[in-house]
Amino acid sequence: MADVASLENLATPSLMLDETIMLRNIERLERRLAALKVSARPHLKTVKSVDAARRVLRNASGATVSTLREAEVFAGAGVTDILYCVGIAPQKLPRVLALRATGCDLVVILDSLAQARAVAEASRKAGALIPALIEIDCDGHRSGLAPDDPTVVEIARILAHEGAELRGVVAHAGESYGARGEASLVAFAEQERDAVVAAVARLEAAGFACPVVSVGSTPTAHFARDLSGVTEVRAGVYVFFDLVQAGIGICGLEDIALSVLTTVIGHQRERGWILIDAGWMALSRDRGTASQKTDQGYGVVCDIEGRVLEGLIVAATNQEHGIIAARPGSAVQPTEMAVGTMLRILPNHACATAAQFDGYQVLTAAGGLDYWPRFRGW
Amino acid sequence: MADVASLENLATPSLMLDETIMLRNIERLERRLAALKVSARPHLKTVKSVDAARRVLRNASGATVSTLREAEVFAGAGVTDILYCVGIAPQKLPRVLALRATGCDLVVILDSLAQARAVAEASRKAGALIPALIEIDCDGHRSGLAPDDPTVVEIARILAHEGAELRGVVAHAGESYGARGEASLVAFAEQERDAVVAAVARLEAAGFACPVVSVGSTPTAHFARDLSGVTEVRAGVYVFFDLVQAGIGICGLEDIALSVLTTVIGHQRERGWILIDAGWMALSRDRGTASQKTDQGYGVVCDIEGRVLEGLIVAATNQEHGIIAARPGSAVQPTEMAVGTMLRILPNHACATAAQFDGYQVLTAAGGLDYWPRFRGW
Repeated sequence: MADVASLENLATPSLMLDETIMLRNIERLERRLAALKVSARPHLKTVKSVDAARRVLRNASGATVSTLREAEVFAGAGVTDILYCVGIAPQKLPRVLALRATGCDLVVILDSLAQARAVAEASRKAGALIPALIEIDCDGHRSGLAPDDPTVVEIARILAHEGAELRGVVAHAGESYGARGEASLVAFAEQERDAVVAAVARLEAAGFACPVVSVGSTPTAHFARDLSGVTEVRAGVYVFFDLVQAGIGICGLEDIALSVLTTVIGHQRERGWILIDAGWMALSRDRGTASQKTDQGYGVVCDIEGRVLEGLIVAATNQEHGIIAARPGSAVQPTEMAVGTMLRILPNHACATAAQFDGYQVLTAAGGLDYWPRFRGW
Repeated sequence: MADVASLENLATPSLMLDETIMLRNIERLERRLAALKVSARPHLKTVKSVDAARRVLRNASGATVSTLREAEVFAGAGVTDILYCVGIAPQKLPRVLALRATGCDLVVILDSLAQARAVAEASRKAGALIPALIEIDCDGHRSGLAPDDPTVVEIARILAHEGAELRGVVAHAGESYGARGEASLVAFAEQERDAVVAAVARLEAAGFACPVVSVGSTPTAHFARDLSGVTEVRAGVYVFFDLVQAGIGICGLEDIALSVLTTVIGHQRERGWILIDAGWMALSRDRGTASQKTDQGYGVVCDIEGRVLEGLIVAATNQEHGIIAARPGSAVQPTEMAVGTMLRILPNHACATAAQFDGYQVLTAAGGLDYWPRFRGW
């Protein structure tokens, strides 16, 4: 790890990334997916950084993104196989075509006849096939069609016969974030696989091939036991992990690669509070652990070296203030830390917290300190 | 207002700002404070934009900021009187001195002997007085000393006699965000004033002058009836207003100047859902109305022209997906809106939502469309 003295010179709040932990997390999923004989298509919405993406993608066949801006930035950095995994809006098709024209195999997803017609029409007008995956709903989480919905085959027909390209199907078990315990996580992974496999069977019976069968979420990716019929797995937050994933049981606190470096700026001793310069602008407003067994407030408090200070959480935030208190029911009371003391906060949700910063202060695997810029926008 | 056709060409999600509403909000508070015979020191943490700040500050004596980055950017744009209104960390004093050396009268706040000693020591070493306000706690919200805490006078002594400058006192009735109804809001404003006036009395009795007596929050600024003894009022979110402020009773929905432009990307008809391309990355994770009488989810849905669609809220969000549903208990069901339809979402918390974007798409008072960049960071 980098010398603590080098952290003491950083302005606070800063976003810290421990590269050693990140590489361990990447390797862990790589090993799993290799054993399951499926490709990895990591979701880059978590990292939003070309430097981080290079490490995430080193053994992956392609990337997943959640915005066209992500697609454009990563394509510009040399990624040539990208799935834009948010239902396509017709207005966005000119940008999709423009990016495809540069040589990037950008694929869209959709779950309605209207979108299929728009994709087919845009393809015909441009004289360039836009490939699409049909989104299948496996758990009522958000979007997608039931595997047995006749619309699935109708969409396939439009894509394949009216000028676009049917590339396959895609599902995301978003409800797995509410799972607890191994049996439940394994069941979510099976449900995700079953949904796409059922949709592929219907499509193949209707004469449509599905070269891509894509599933994924960080919880299901880490608990799937059999992915027969699936060609690729998507996951994003596993690269950094966070308190929500620890609460689900996918990782431990020692696997969280991301933290927010902060400085003590005051106390309210009668109330047992420590005030820090990381509010919700730094930590994000995400309260993903609020519905879990252990509510971690706005984050778990560590010392400057990243050691968890048992019992202390960021209990409340304002824009640029955080209030550290002992976890409700805890016997531990906030210790007296002098104004100026630096701490690190483990985030509820890595995607949300990272998005509050323009870049990562990286504790490199080589033992130094580096800076990796992030981008944002749409 | 700008032609709707000009909005249809914008990429979504985009942050929309209605300048006409913004100017009306600014004028409303200017009139109040003029009648109360106090200066305005608007808080620029909400706008984080030089273009917006020019309008906010046109009749103000100075500005308030929540980060040194804000101080540096606004000083660079010509603002010469700035209050950095988050407890000072000793590590940040070199930046304070550097900015003061450029001619900007940057003032810090503090509430401990340790901070006062650090400010005095930094002043002596630099041979340049750093002015400070002592933070007074008026409602147990966060930071600050009780007006009758003997530490207040001890801090004054250190600032005035050990090399720094005692500029006065400051309080913020943050708990007023939990107030409901005029009587409660008026009481919070009185409590805020009473706290600083009591502290000033003790300081003056000990021989210390307080040229600056600063109070403020958007709720108390709009309900204070008497500000005798106060010299300036701070407020920030009033410039844009939002659903939280509407829920407190400070404004109506028609006073909210900010909205997120979004596009319909799908439906789940059996569940009554409309899917949009504005998730928490665009709207923020702020759920400030969750504890209010009317929980507005992640925002109130309007058509592209900004007319509220009664009963529709963004009920849930993922990173780049929003789910619109009818408010629980409402008789209204989500109407069928074609994929591609554009909508506007009123935000829970203007500061948090605006922070998710790099700039404002401004519907100018002159009837055109403009772009005002925002900045972020610390």
